[in-house]
Amino acid sequence: MNGAEALLETLVASGVEVCFANPGTSEMQLVSAIGNTGRMRPVLCLFEGVASGAADGYGRMADKPALTLLHVGSGFANSLANQHNARRAGSPLVNIVGDHASYHLQYDAPLTSDLPALAAWASAWTKVAESPDDLAAAGAAAVAEAQAENGRIATVVVPADHAWNAASGAAAVQPPPVPPAVADTLIAQTASRLQSGRPTVLFLGGRALREENLYRLGQIAAATGARLVCQVFPARLQRGAGRVAVERLPYFAEQATEALAGTEHLILVGAPAPVSFFAYPDKASWLAPADCEVSTLATAGDDIDSALEALVAAVGASGEPSLVTAAEAPAPEDGPLDGLLVGQLLAQHMPEDAIVVDDGATNGLGAYLLTERASRHDWLALTGGAIGQGIPAALGAAIACPDRKVINLEADGSAMYTIQGLWSLAREKADTVTILFNNRSYAILNIELERVGAGEPNASTLSMLDLSNPDLDFTSLARGMGVNASRAATVAEFATQLTQALATPGPHLIEAMV
Amino acid sequence: MNGAEALLETLVASGVEVCFANPGTSEMQLVSAIGNTGRMRPVLCLFEGVASGAADGYGRMADKPALTLLHVGSGFANSLANQHNARRAGSPLVNIVGDHASYHLQYDAPLTSDLPALAAWASAWTKVAESPDDLAAAGAAAVAEAQAENGRIATVVVPADHAWNAASGAAAVQPPPVPPAVADTLIAQTASRLQSGRPTVLFLGGRALREENLYRLGQIAAATGARLVCQVFPARLQRGAGRVAVERLPYFAEQATEALAGTEHLILVGAPAPVSFFAYPDKASWLAPADCEVSTLATAGDDIDSALEALVAAVGASGEPSLVTAAEAPAPEDGPLDGLLVGQLLAQHMPEDAIVVDDGATNGLGAYLLTERASRHDWLALTGGAIGQGIPAALGAAIACPDRKVINLEADGSAMYTIQGLWSLAREKADTVTILFNNRSYAILNIELERVGAGEPNASTLSMLDLSNPDLDFTSLARGMGVNASRAATVAEFATQLTQALATPGPHLIEAMV
Repeated sequence: MNGAEALLETLVASGVEVCFANPGTSEMQLVSAIGNTGRMRPVLCLFEGVASGAADGYGRMADKPALTLLHVGSGFANSLANQHNARRAGSPLVNIVGDHASYHLQYDAPLTSDLPALAAWASAWTKVAESPDDLAAAGAAAVAEAQAENGRIATVVVPADHAWNAASGAAAVQPPPVPPAVADTLIAQTASRLQSGRPTVLFLGGRALREENLYRLGQIAAATGARLVCQVFPARLQRGAGRVAVERLPYFAEQATEALAGTEHLILVGAPAPVSFFAYPDKASWLAPADCEVSTLATAGDDIDSALEALVAAVGASGEPSLVTAAEAPAPEDGPLDGLLVGQLLAQHMPEDAIVVDDGATNGLGAYLLTERASRHDWLALTGGAIGQGIPAALGAAIACPDRKVINLEADGSAMYTIQGLWSLAREKADTVTILFNNRSYAILNIELERVGAGEPNASTLSMLDLSNPDLDFTSLARGMGVNASRAATVAEFATQLTQALATPGPHLIEAMV
Repeated sequence: MNGAEALLETLVASGVEVCFANPGTSEMQLVSAIGNTGRMRPVLCLFEGVASGAADGYGRMADKPALTLLHVGSGFANSLANQHNARRAGSPLVNIVGDHASYHLQYDAPLTSDLPALAAWASAWTKVAESPDDLAAAGAAAVAEAQAENGRIATVVVPADHAWNAASGAAAVQPPPVPPAVADTLIAQTASRLQSGRPTVLFLGGRALREENLYRLGQIAAATGARLVCQVFPARLQRGAGRVAVERLPYFAEQATEALAGTEHLILVGAPAPVSFFAYPDKASWLAPADCEVSTLATAGDDIDSALEALVAAVGASGEPSLVTAAEAPAPEDGPLDGLLVGQLLAQHMPEDAIVVDDGATNGLGAYLLTERASRHDWLALTGGAIGQGIPAALGAAIACPDRKVINLEADGSAMYTIQGLWSLAREKADTVTILFNNRSYAILNIELERVGAGEPNASTLSMLDLSNPDLDFTSLARGMGVNASRAATVAEFATQLTQALATPGPHLIEAMV
């Protein structure tokens, strides 16, 4: 048994089932070990950002890590933008990154770079294996560390010689650390804030947005009058008919400030304090009112489930929750398509327990608003703001949940960052519908250009924000990678194509001209 | 005038003419300043790796830096793989990377990350601007620093508030540092090694591979019998009919060891000592014979031109050079296409002073060998080994040299890393022919799997190395991004399509089924 085989046996024993792979020469023993175990599903990705984004989507839905298998510093570098999103999502994720043989690094061969520096940028926990046996031990530790704090990134750097030299066997499986419990005194303090009669917002993220916790939060809201507001970009929000609804903080600073105006207590549950996504001249970065008391009940890494259960008891909120969503899905009239109409049609047609991945930028918001009363579903947002996450995350979510339909809302500009992911959707027959919003521009930047006070744009300036000349043809791109594709410019066309796509397993892309 | 305008005015005054851009919200003032100068050509790229690869290709051909304009840590991260290639190429390159406003970083907003850590990974020189005026000064310094040592990477991090706040004006242009001269004693020592009568190799990279220096090296070879051998992946090799030819070190360690067997003096001129690209079990990392004396005449950052001129004089080599390439371009017979036949057809049809970008992996080598006696041309190789460099570098080279035809040899697997670059080729009407070698696999990895001794592969293992299921259709991908495309499976088809593509300005893609 070599080091690679010992590592793979350890990872499989630790419960890891899927590997999103883009390997190179230094990972050939790992590739071989994956092929030989027969108990690890390899998913080939044609770009590393697809692998990391897929592992993020998988982790959010499976609540356990998938692997990425990546190649040296420059390959790992390609994965970083979606590692960033995964980090912000609190996704459990284990990176296995091959590097040169330990004795080869001194020669500074062309592919040599400071891989540990990149690993540290992305990861909560990093280990450069020191021997073949250490490699297996690092694998066991990585799976546990990736599940610490309800999910984070653990990276193992694998020098090629440690993969190919003999190892004594698999390492012992390590239990994941238990999330820290919230102290009783903090529960009591939070209860008294909620019962103070002053305007209070529970600001929510992480596991607070799962159905059971939303039910508890709905009970608390019913008993105390607190508002429930969630992060702008939640990692996984369970919503739709029959579930307790939350307000979503607006994206733009001035609207967010307005939404929080008058709040005297802002209590954080699984989310950091609300701040502006970007700074703007003469606009606030800190979004809560200046005199609002901001306190933390639980961070994203704490035991949120138990904390909310205790809080329900502490405020005597065992009754029915408020804010339960009623089903409603009116059919729109025919006419030219836009983002809001796409949302309305989605609300009408989306099957129960769909997973929506939102990399839709300006058009994602309309779809979000209009699906509020749709069948229950999970909404996965762009947590870190690094666009190009949708197609990969849809791949990962589809593999984590093969019995659920995945709908990916994808902006044209965003899609182009990881368009290669369409091929993996086709290869894996992933049950996904990619709704490609084609408005032929980086629309958000046209808005932001004005908001930052950058002056009157000329044609040259605007050329840096538009996606025409030439027009991108996403049906042609999708077909070039083996994905069924069609184009819709009207409500009727979109409704027909969406119905067909939802009824037919496997990947589809609908290019929505908006 | 704001900081962004002061920076742009400084960069323009410093001679920078082109900006490969993929901006976001924090760069809106910079976008506006570029649009307003009218003296900086903005080239929009749909992915940051296209921008950095294009700047690399531009820098290799223009011998001066282009800009990239990139967005915060996660955007810059996407550029790193091609930054790595540019670093290994010794390309002059200036990155302008926007970050959050300086006062906004403390809030750890979703897009916040350690951008300076990534900048340090990629760059020889990095500066985080400390004020609007410091921003302009940093720009002037960056252009100079990027031209130090014959070309390197300089990165300016631009906090958004320093871009939008008032600045007092442009900064003074800074002259680039002069490359260090090689000492006379070292010239004399090298001359005596060359005249020792012992088997000697001049091992070449960087500026040693430019036509004038190759002429000098040919003179030295004629006078001393030294062999001329270049790096496996030269940044820019001027070759073809009428030029002094060099041997290219083989890629695989055992072949490279064989090529250098018997060498007693190995003299480095613009290249590091030859080492194996990867380590393999039981194969050498150091490629020169154990008893070979390895010495350095000049590093890539030294004044190589003057050193070689002095060396010619020191060995009394003012006669005609040896190794001058004779023209030869036999026409192949019709039949199924392969990589060697593509090379033969290229040799036959390639116009004078073509620029060949080689991201062709296993098929690039055949084309290289068969074009040895073609019309004179520049060959740009994958210096850092990070695949996905060809399409972007072709874009940059075409913009640097609008009067020359650019031919990009692109492997299917490699192409998919930065396939978005085709759109920029179309938008810029870049005079390029992309020859897409479609063999439906990561062919090099199938070779390496055996070479690293990873055992007998099964179907699952092989699935991680193949690009079929589904087949990629590159003509469909190209057309989806506005690039003319055709497919060739035979010598006759390829010859017809190549002739047409070379005769018609603008971007073309020929999918060569090999």
